[in-house]
Amino acid sequence: MPATSVPHLQTALTGPLLELESHLLAHTNEIEAWLRKQFSKTPAPFYGSVDLRNAGYKLAPVDTNLFPAGFNNLHPELRSLAVHAAQSKISQVCPIADGVLIIPENHTRNTFYLENLFALKSIIETAGYEVQIGSMMEGLDAPMVIELPSGNALTLKPLMRKDNQVGVDDFFPCAVLLNNDLSGGRPEILENIEQTLLPPLDLGWDNRYKTHHFQHYSEVTEAFAKIINIDPWLITPTSEQCGPISFKERTGLDQLADAVNKMLADTQKYYDEHDIGCKPFVIVKSDSGTYGMAIMSVQSAEDVLNLNRKQRNKMSSVKEGLHVEQMLVQEGVYTYEEIDGAVAEPVVYMIGSQVVGSFYRVHTGKGATDNLNSPGMHFQPISYAEAGILPDENQQPDAAPNRFYAYGVIARLALLAAAREIADATGELPPLDDNA
Amino acid sequence: MPATSVPHLQTALTGPLLELESHLLAHTNEIEAWLRKQFSKTPAPFYGSVDLRNAGYKLAPVDTNLFPAGFNNLHPELRSLAVHAAQSKISQVCPIADGVLIIPENHTRNTFYLENLFALKSIIETAGYEVQIGSMMEGLDAPMVIELPSGNALTLKPLMRKDNQVGVDDFFPCAVLLNNDLSGGRPEILENIEQTLLPPLDLGWDNRYKTHHFQHYSEVTEAFAKIINIDPWLITPTSEQCGPISFKERTGLDQLADAVNKMLADTQKYYDEHDIGCKPFVIVKSDSGTYGMAIMSVQSAEDVLNLNRKQRNKMSSVKEGLHVEQMLVQEGVYTYEEIDGAVAEPVVYMIGSQVVGSFYRVHTGKGATDNLNSPGMHFQPISYAEAGILPDENQQPDAAPNRFYAYGVIARLALLAAAREIADATGELPPLDDNA
Repeated sequence: MPATSVPHLQTALTGPLLELESHLLAHTNEIEAWLRKQFSKTPAPFYGSVDLRNAGYKLAPVDTNLFPAGFNNLHPELRSLAVHAAQSKISQVCPIADGVLIIPENHTRNTFYLENLFALKSIIETAGYEVQIGSMMEGLDAPMVIELPSGNALTLKPLMRKDNQVGVDDFFPCAVLLNNDLSGGRPEILENIEQTLLPPLDLGWDNRYKTHHFQHYSEVTEAFAKIINIDPWLITPTSEQCGPISFKERTGLDQLADAVNKMLADTQKYYDEHDIGCKPFVIVKSDSGTYGMAIMSVQSAEDVLNLNRKQRNKMSSVKEGLHVEQMLVQEGVYTYEEIDGAVAEPVVYMIGSQVVGSFYRVHTGKGATDNLNSPGMHFQPISYAEAGILPDENQQPDAAPNRFYAYGVIARLALLAAAREIADATGELPPLDDNA
Repeated sequence: MPATSVPHLQTALTGPLLELESHLLAHTNEIEAWLRKQFSKTPAPFYGSVDLRNAGYKLAPVDTNLFPAGFNNLHPELRSLAVHAAQSKISQVCPIADGVLIIPENHTRNTFYLENLFALKSIIETAGYEVQIGSMMEGLDAPMVIELPSGNALTLKPLMRKDNQVGVDDFFPCAVLLNNDLSGGRPEILENIEQTLLPPLDLGWDNRYKTHHFQHYSEVTEAFAKIINIDPWLITPTSEQCGPISFKERTGLDQLADAVNKMLADTQKYYDEHDIGCKPFVIVKSDSGTYGMAIMSVQSAEDVLNLNRKQRNKMSSVKEGLHVEQMLVQEGVYTYEEIDGAVAEPVVYMIGSQVVGSFYRVHTGKGATDNLNSPGMHFQPISYAEAGILPDENQQPDAAPNRFYAYGVIARLALLAAAREIADATGELPPLDDNA
C-alpha cells in the first residue's frame, strides 16, 4: 500500500474502488505537500470533526464542527495518534504551556458528552499536560464530581476570572480549550482574556455561519482541484444562504422555495451532463449551529411550502433558543455507505492538521437522503483493518490501497476552510496556492 | 486501559504484569509531563532506535542508534504515526523546508537496508516533502536506479557540494537527514554546511562513545527515578569504559579482566541483596559503533583472558576498519522475552520524541545472555493488538493495560540521553529536573 498520512482505516463500502478515491491515492505526495503548505500559512484550529457523505460519484463534507464531541467514540487503538497530535499542536500554539484548561458544554446529564470530555482530558493529560475542567454552568459554585458509566470520574470546577485570565483554583494556564460551541452567545467571562483561547471566540456558533464556511470550502476546493486536476464539483456541495426566514411566522418561505427549485434544477443539469442517474434533493438547515435540529431534506419546492405545524415548529427549534433567521440551502449528497444494512455517514476527527480517527454515524431508520444526526443514531468506531486483511507491503504500491485516505483528504480540506474562516475573522487571510 | 502516548503494542511476554511495568503505567501523567519538559529543553534528535532487554526484574536499553535502519520492519498499520511525527519534527527544526535530502549508507547490495531507505523516503514524502537521496558512494557520478524486492525502485544520486550547501541536481533543501552513521569518519563534503544536518556531524560513530551515552543515560535515569520513586538500577545498565585495548596484540586484556571481575562482583552483590537468583554476566563491546560485531558475552574474567585467535580477530573487526581501542564493559541484562521459543529483543523506533513503532529482533539460535544482533536474526514487527484482545474502555483503567508502554518510556529515556549528548557536543546542556 502507499504510505499514507491518514490512519489505516476501512470504509464500509465494499464495491469497486471509486474513480475519485483512486485519483486521490495516486496523488498522495502532491496532496500532502499542498495541505502542509496551506496549513503552515493558515494554522489549523486546535481540533475539528467533519461529517462526510459519499455518493460514489461525489464525496463531500456536510458539517464541520470546531467544538467536536465524540472523542470517546474513537477507537482506543488510535489513541496515541491523538496524544501525539495534541502535544504537537499545544506546543505550537503555546510553547511554554504546562497545563490546559477545558471549558465544556453545560450538559451535566448527557453521559455521552461527559465520556467525550473524559476522553479529551485523558488525551491531553497523556500528552504531558495538567488538565482541569472549568465549567461556565450557572449555579456551580463548588467542584462537582460526576461518576461516569465507564467507571471513570470527572470533576467540574466553577470557571473564575482573575484580571485578564480565566481558570479554576490557582490554575490559570496559557492554553484554554473551548469544547463549548457558544450557541448561547459570547460569554462575558471569556471576553478579552490574555490567554490563548482555542478556537477563538469569533468562531462560536453565535458568530459563525455555515454558508461562510462553505464559501471558504469552495475557494479551497477550487485551488485544490487545480493541483490534482479534478472537477471541484466532485468534492464540493453547492451551498447558498437564504433568508431571513421564520418558519413559525411563515415569512420568507417563497424565497426559500425559489432557492430550492434553483438548486434542484442546477443539480439535475449537472447530473444530466454527467450521466448520473439520481434524483436531486436539497438540504435546508439553519445557517447557525443546530445540533441536528432545524434541518430537513426536500425533493421539491412544495416540501417547503406545505410544511405542517409540527414540521414548522421543528425547523424553528434550535439549541438554547438561538434565533433562526438565515438558512443554508445545500445540494443534497446521497450517502451510499451502509453498515449491516443501515445508512452510515463517516465522521473524521482531527487534532491540529492531523487525522486522528474516525467513526461512522449509523442510523437504522433512515435512508440515503436523510440527515443521520438525529435520535436513534449510534456510533461505530472505525479501527485499523483487521489483521487478516492488512495490506502487504510486498505487493505493488497500488494493491489494497487505503480507501479511507480519500475521506481524510476531504476532511482536511474542510478543516483548511475552517482555518481560513479563523484567519478571515482575525483579518489575515493569505492567498491559496493553486499551482501544482 | 489508560490513555497512552505509546502505540497500543503487545509484548511477547505472557506472564503476570511485572512490578516495574505496573509502576510506570500508574505514573503515566507524571512521566509524560516530565519527558515533555525535558524534550522541550533538550530537543530530541530527528530519529532514533533503542534496543531493550527485559529481564523481568530489570528493563534496560543496551544500544541507542541515531541513524536507525529498519523502518521497513515497522508494521504498516503504524505508518501514519511516523508520518505525523516526521512532519512535526521537520517543521520544528526547519519551518520553511519543502524538501529533505537523505544521505544514506553506501550499502548498495544490502536490499534490507535499501528497503529501509525506501520506507524512510516514503514516510517523509507522505508528510508532504520532496525527498531526494544524495549518496556519498565513491565512483557514483550519475543517478543509479535500484529495483527492490518489494517492487519499488530507489534512485541514488551523487551528492554534490555547491558553496556551503549539499544537494543533488538543483535540490539543496534546508534539511539534510543523515542515515549514515559516519563510521568511516567525518566526510569533508559535510563539514560546515549551512543547512540543518540531522543529527549533527558530531554524533557520528567517529566521534561518539557508547560510554558517554550511558553516562548521560545514567544521569537521566537518576533524575527520572526520583520523579516516580524507583531504584534507578531497575532501568540502568551499569557501564564502564575500559582501554585502550588491542585484542590482536593482546594488550590491555588484564585491565579488561579486572573490569569484568569488578562488574560481575558488583552485580552479584546487588542480586544477593535483592534476592535475584540469576548468574551475573557482562557484555564487552567496542565503545564505538559496531554493527553487532566486536561484541561478546562473558561470565568470568577467564573468558576474556582465554580468547582463541578467531575470537580475538572477531573482537578486532569493526565496520570500515574503525580502530578498536576503548571498550564498553557493561552489566549484562538477561532477555526473557521469547517469540515461538526463540529469544527476542524489543527494538523501539522514535521520530522526534514520539514512539512510532517497534519490532522484535528474534534469534532462534541464541540464549538469554547472547547478543542477538548477529547473523541468523530476523525481525518481527509488533502490531496493534488484534481485534479480539483489544482493551475495553468500559473496564477499570487498570484492566488490560498496555504492557508495551514501559518499553516506550525506557526507549525515550535513552533518546533523552542522546539528546543530551547532542546538547553536550554543542555546548549547551541544561540541567535535568528531578523534582516531581
